[in-house]
Amino acid sequence: MSLVIIAPSKKNTRFWQQSLSESLAQLGLRVNVEIWPEVEKPEEVLMAVTWKHPGESLYAYPHLRVVSSMGAGVDHILKDEHLPLHWQVVRIVDQELTTSMSNYLLAAVLNYHKQMYRYLQLQQHQQWGYTETPEIPLKPGILGLGELGQDIARKLQALGFDVAGYSRSPKELEGIHTYAGEGELDAFLQRVNLLICLLPLTRQTRGFLNRALFARCQPGTYLINVARGEHLVEEDLLEALQQGQLAGATLDVFRQEPLPADHPFWKQPDIVITPHIASVTKPEAAIPQVAENYRRMIRNEPLLNKIDRLAGY
Amino acid sequence: MSLVIIAPSKKNTRFWQQSLSESLAQLGLRVNVEIWPEVEKPEEVLMAVTWKHPGESLYAYPHLRVVSSMGAGVDHILKDEHLPLHWQVVRIVDQELTTSMSNYLLAAVLNYHKQMYRYLQLQQHQQWGYTETPEIPLKPGILGLGELGQDIARKLQALGFDVAGYSRSPKELEGIHTYAGEGELDAFLQRVNLLICLLPLTRQTRGFLNRALFARCQPGTYLINVARGEHLVEEDLLEALQQGQLAGATLDVFRQEPLPADHPFWKQPDIVITPHIASVTKPEAAIPQVAENYRRMIRNEPLLNKIDRLAGY
Ligand SMILES: NC(=O)c1ccc[n+]([C@@H]2O[C@H](COP(=O)([O-])OP(=O)(O)OC[C@H]3O[C@@H](n4cnc5c(N)ncnc54)[C@H](OP(=O)(O)O)[C@@H]3O)[C@@H](O)[C@H]2O)c1
Ligand SMILES: NC(=O)c1ccc[n+]([C@@H]2O[C@H](COP(=O)([O-])OP(=O)(O)OC[C@H]3O[C@@H](n4cnc5c(N)ncnc54)[C@H](OP(=O)(O)O)[C@@H]3O)[C@@H](O)[C@H]2O)c1
Repeated sequence: MSLVIIAPSKKNTRFWQQSLSESLAQLGLRVNVEIWPEVEKPEEVLMAVTWKHPGESLYAYPHLRVVSSMGAGVDHILKDEHLPLHWQVVRIVDQELTTSMSNYLLAAVLNYHKQMYRYLQLQQHQQWGYTETPEIPLKPGILGLGELGQDIARKLQALGFDVAGYSRSPKELEGIHTYAGEGELDAFLQRVNLLICLLPLTRQTRGFLNRALFARCQPGTYLINVARGEHLVEEDLLEALQQGQLAGATLDVFRQEPLPADHPFWKQPDIVITPHIASVTKPEAAIPQVAENYRRMIRNEPLLNKIDRLAGY
Repeated sequence: MSLVIIAPSKKNTRFWQQSLSESLAQLGLRVNVEIWPEVEKPEEVLMAVTWKHPGESLYAYPHLRVVSSMGAGVDHILKDEHLPLHWQVVRIVDQELTTSMSNYLLAAVLNYHKQMYRYLQLQQHQQWGYTETPEIPLKPGILGLGELGQDIARKLQALGFDVAGYSRSPKELEGIHTYAGEGELDAFLQRVNLLICLLPLTRQTRGFLNRALFARCQPGTYLINVARGEHLVEEDLLEALQQGQLAGATLDVFRQEPLPADHPFWKQPDIVITPHIASVTKPEAAIPQVAENYRRMIRNEPLLNKIDRLAGY
């Protein structure tokens, strides 16, 4: 029995190998953990643990059954359109990752609420910018009410914000105004003036943040994108900012990462850029989950955090 | 019976006058609300509602019994050393003010935790600053565990931080490591690497944030001062930053406000300046409290949010 790690962009694959072997051993499993492309017996590989696997790399293993993401997103796996439907795809769900994302989002939201960027700019000119009403009354709306969306929704609500959320299927969350499906999208957009994108990247959500959507927002809406760069049509954001339809954007993810040095976002005073650090999966938290799913796979038990292959998340 | 408002620096004294008269009327009290210096019958004034009253202005009222601050702090009242000890001094305590302060502090803490200022600076040079460990492990310590200190302590703890607090008298707060009195100050300072000053300004706390205190901190500690400018010895902060004893400071309050245009703080890259906006008392919340204390005063009932005149807060 063996497992292959396919993550050429990651620097810590040796750590994963070592630590995953130990985790599997602790579950009483003797599994050979190999790192692509050095796989001795491809026919023994039952599971692949991947992050942005190259082209055809998954198709060398005739008995592959499960592909596990090394992080929360699976778009890097599912963008491979030929993935056999009987392969199960799983991802990492981790409280620490969720907390970390919410901490980033709280900073991003509260910086707008308290006009922190305005004061930072005034400071450059030695200007005291006191006003009697220093707070911008924000009504945050969360796009995507999954693991991450629900956590930040609850936390913002606990801080006194009037929070709304939007998802595919209807949800009931105490104290949160929830909307589901395209039919309720306008009502959702009209209620909020700050959007946080926490959608998964799927065929339905690619390019979701576009000119048409911005036009349906209240003028002066803020945008925070921490999901995937491909959710956003970048030119449309620039246009919406220029027209004042959007008031500002905080972006952690981009179509091309690292963001190229000549990208117009860098110089845009109303865009805040962070280098895809909103939340980082700690291997220490992810590895035991991968081991546990290996155990479940060979016992034919239901896997943890399994993706719905048709929905794409 | 009458009440005088003494707040020459405030622009909204007419609103206070109008709205306070209404609040008192709702309690069945007929009180003449006047604005200093236009007071017709000084001998009828029983209560003064003040914000930074000028010099001798309080001593014109022979039957004055209560001085109420228009906000949370009373240092502007008590700095008058001749204030008769039998005058009662009260202040405003308001959930919205507390929430507003905690929102400011969460932004300030999370901006350090997530290295937001570093990314803002990198953005100026079109630089992607990705690192595998983007979070600074912060251990916040709150100086002052009163209305405001307890609220932010609880909120930071709920977000997953290891929080400590320091006060004059011992406190038990679930999940918070509490320390009291000078004897426990070193243990407190050694446990934390981010200090939030929420002390009242008293004879004991004036200049509390000074060179000697910084020397007792862990090297690289962050400082957030939202209490009063006089808590901080400003030259000592510059020195501690230069030596790396402190890693950065976020300041909302200053010895002189507005901060003079030639003050060295403006150009210090590791100081973030906001113009005393961390939390602003809304008259709508304060006025009913003042009216209620007027009612209690004339009925000889215990006043709300009364200051301990000897402790000075
Ligand atoms: N920047 C970073 O550092 C970072 C780190 C981790 C994750 N992420 C991103 O965050 C995303 C969200 O993560 P998660 O764990 O919260 O995902 P999740 O648990 O799968 O939740 C996804 C949510 O989006 C909703 N949704 C899906 N398709 C939709 C559609 N077409 N219209 C409306 N709503 C739709 C789902 O609705 P239902 O509830 O109805 O199914 C669900 O509420 C990940 O996919 C990843 O891209 C970014
Ligand atoms: N920047 C702004 O916008 C803004 C807005 C509102 C308020 N403020 C400032 O925030 C301050 C705190 O407000 P608050 O309502 O939380 O005050 P509070 O309820 O009176 O609490 C004061 C706390 O400080 C502690 N303390 C007092 N003297 C001390 C000493 N010598 N050593 C150690 N601890 C001491 C007290 O200890 P015990 O619990 O043992 O008594 C108490 O825990 C106000 O005084 C005001 O200056 C600033």
